[in-house]
Amino acid sequence: MPNDDIIFAPASGQGGAISIVRISGEGCLAMLDSVVSLRHGTIAEAPGFSLRFGVIPGLDEVLVSVFRAPKSYTGEDMAELSCHASQYILSELMGRLSEAGGRVAEAGEFTQRAFLNGKMDLAQAEAVADIISSDSLAQHRVAFNQLRGGYSAELSEIRARLLELTSLLELELDFAEEDVQFADRGRLRELLDSSIEHCTRLADSFRIGNAVRNGVPVAIVGAPNSGKSTLLNALLKDDRAIVSDIPGTTRDTVEECCVLDGILFRFIDTAGIRAASDEIERMGIARTRRKASEAQIILGLIDSSKVTSPAVFEALVRDLAALYDPTWQKLVILVNKVDLRSDNKNVSTLNNFVLPNDIESLGADLMFISAKHGQGLDELLERLVSSSGIPSESGTLVTNARHALALREVSSALSRVRSGMDLGLSSDLLSEDLRSALRSLGSITGEITSDEVLGEIFGKFCIGK
Amino acid sequence: MPNDDIIFAPASGQGGAISIVRISGEGCLAMLDSVVSLRHGTIAEAPGFSLRFGVIPGLDEVLVSVFRAPKSYTGEDMAELSCHASQYILSELMGRLSEAGGRVAEAGEFTQRAFLNGKMDLAQAEAVADIISSDSLAQHRVAFNQLRGGYSAELSEIRARLLELTSLLELELDFAEEDVQFADRGRLRELLDSSIEHCTRLADSFRIGNAVRNGVPVAIVGAPNSGKSTLLNALLKDDRAIVSDIPGTTRDTVEECCVLDGILFRFIDTAGIRAASDEIERMGIARTRRKASEAQIILGLIDSSKVTSPAVFEALVRDLAALYDPTWQKLVILVNKVDLRSDNKNVSTLNNFVLPNDIESLGADLMFISAKHGQGLDELLERLVSSSGIPSESGTLVTNARHALALREVSSALSRVRSGMDLGLSSDLLSEDLRSALRSLGSITGEITSDEVLGEIFGKFCIGK
Repeated sequence: MPNDDIIFAPASGQGGAISIVRISGEGCLAMLDSVVSLRHGTIAEAPGFSLRFGVIPGLDEVLVSVFRAPKSYTGEDMAELSCHASQYILSELMGRLSEAGGRVAEAGEFTQRAFLNGKMDLAQAEAVADIISSDSLAQHRVAFNQLRGGYSAELSEIRARLLELTSLLELELDFAEEDVQFADRGRLRELLDSSIEHCTRLADSFRIGNAVRNGVPVAIVGAPNSGKSTLLNALLKDDRAIVSDIPGTTRDTVEECCVLDGILFRFIDTAGIRAASDEIERMGIARTRRKASEAQIILGLIDSSKVTSPAVFEALVRDLAALYDPTWQKLVILVNKVDLRSDNKNVSTLNNFVLPNDIESLGADLMFISAKHGQGLDELLERLVSSSGIPSESGTLVTNARHALALREVSSALSRVRSGMDLGLSSDLLSEDLRSALRSLGSITGEITSDEVLGEIFGKFCIGK
Repeated sequence: MPNDDIIFAPASGQGGAISIVRISGEGCLAMLDSVVSLRHGTIAEAPGFSLRFGVIPGLDEVLVSVFRAPKSYTGEDMAELSCHASQYILSELMGRLSEAGGRVAEAGEFTQRAFLNGKMDLAQAEAVADIISSDSLAQHRVAFNQLRGGYSAELSEIRARLLELTSLLELELDFAEEDVQFADRGRLRELLDSSIEHCTRLADSFRIGNAVRNGVPVAIVGAPNSGKSTLLNALLKDDRAIVSDIPGTTRDTVEECCVLDGILFRFIDTAGIRAASDEIERMGIARTRRKASEAQIILGLIDSSKVTSPAVFEALVRDLAALYDPTWQKLVILVNKVDLRSDNKNVSTLNNFVLPNDIESLGADLMFISAKHGQGLDELLERLVSSSGIPSESGTLVTNARHALALREVSSALSRVRSGMDLGLSSDLLSEDLRSALRSLGSITGEITSDEVLGEIFGKFCIGK
């Protein structure tokens, strides 16, 4: 793609009352004068941030928004045509713009130009795509913070510390032959430690950031007929926003998503678990295990009417406990169908079946619900939200796998610097790793990026952005 | 619906890169200042036809297009917010506009306000909805001409003549007691005749105008296996724009529509026709007859391989001819599967089966085609376009049933004036009918219209227009 020609694309969705067509590139305003007739004056003479009413002869009446470089989205001369939303008009208009010398823009090309013209860094450009695909408050908040440059500012801080580190080391390097250690090694170590800590913290936030962006994965497991589908339907009930399609993640099953309390959850329904009697059942259980191992929260269902003795209950709890990794997962044991138990007036009698500290030692929660009658579901929702680990006020969360990877690289390069210092390596060897850390950091905001990476990033955008 | 409050609605379609939200009503600019923060100044102070960049705190960066009464679409103070196209942002933004004192607009309410504020007449307002739903060049051309006021100007001419008529008659009325005929009866008759002719011509154009708007109805009839479906598929072949859904008409069957040479055609596939052997077949044939009777063009298919003698051919032709009304329909007899005939090297031998003047006396066309191999289809398309009756350069076409009805009413009221004159009725009796004609004419552009009619017209609009 050349970067100096005139591009155009529809920027609004199909349907509605009006359509927007974006045009960008040097000379695009004069070009538009050959497509749109104004009553007075010309588009080429119109000042930036002004609107003009015009007619596309025989086709439509349009409003023209005029922007002048560098004060535009792309940083180039730009215009937006607002026409009546008709497929006929749109295709005819695109034809005329093409005849006038424009080219249909590739996906993301406007934002790519904004990046190339220094209107935003790469992290902000990526936030544009994230903002458009946001379905929940939490997703949107992280993307909006990133768009507004909050994340980039944090990266700048780290960069400033790394530059200070570099200059301290280079000072030493300049006098290396004199075998003098000028650098304040205490300050060096302090800068290193804080940078490593900061990068690691940001990279670690990707687990939560990813959940924010792609949904908190919640596996629902339990024996057949323990009420998994009923629970899922109750959680997805009509008055909550149901999200049918979450882009950006690879998933091999259809999963139900919904937004609860501003957080996107991704519910993974699994095959039932029970003692395997044949090979096919064993495969189903292996699949459930794999699904459960990907979830951040496991909801383990137990049919209370099947709990006939403490031993049965213990066995069921231990089956569920076997599915989870307490180091990062949360297990919530849901004793379901409490409405069916003859002793349901005092469900806490079930508590006696397992010693509370047994459950505690598993690190699991125990709740009593009736999925069918909605009993206990509000408490369950609260538990889901609190177990999501997503803070209600956002510090910076890394939601982008590319960024997380780069931050890990920064972190490990800096760790190599630190071990090198401990081993008394010379400054020039340390500098090598430091430069590598700076390169990785720069790749996030796009100071250092290959065309290939750019193509991959902007290719995921929608047309017109 | 009150007409003096602040209304808002999304105006662009779902999806895409950016969304537009429209706001209109006195005070809406100041209201927006409570929703959008500008870096400099306020929206309330921004001049009309200017753009401002602002932030909706915590939600999005937006562009604000500012319009000031009366120079806006609605004629009121107006703004358009251009935000990132995300369902989350849109619903949150709508919430904030509502909290700030706005109300979600009804369908067509912006255009209704434009009408009520004298920005456009009713015929132009109706053209807005037509423009948005246009799928073909012909549809669009008529609607655009109407939007630009071409049709309204023509109605104004008629109106001017009727007003001259009225004043001539009233002059006479003033001096009625003196039993003098002041009016130039010759001029009166000239005005009457030309107005009646004009209104009748416009009302008559509705048959074509309706075909332009809703598609030219073409019935495909013929015996079973004569190749009806093959022909339909060949006509709808991929490289032509296929229109799946044409709003505005009531149809009891699914019909295939496509745009050929800028004209929308509506193809009606029918059950086969053949000698009825039982009641069910008779019903099928009756249905085919009804379908054919609604079509402007009938394509009658004959399987040439079944034509074994002149008598068979004549019988088949007469079956088809029985389906059509030569006063307004066009019948094209298509001798299909010419590739299958052993004597296909000279298909004109088939001509000998029916005397050319027999076909001519039927008023039908005769063509030889192979729907399967595309033979003769280009000529058929030309024939369809020329038989559509739609002029390639548009004079005014009435596409709206409401307008056609009103024009007929004008025409018949004026005819009553003319007969009254012939009978020597007094001027005051003639004036009554003349006023009725003026009322009917005024109802088209909305000078005289009831709230009920307005509600019906604007209720058909999309939201945001």
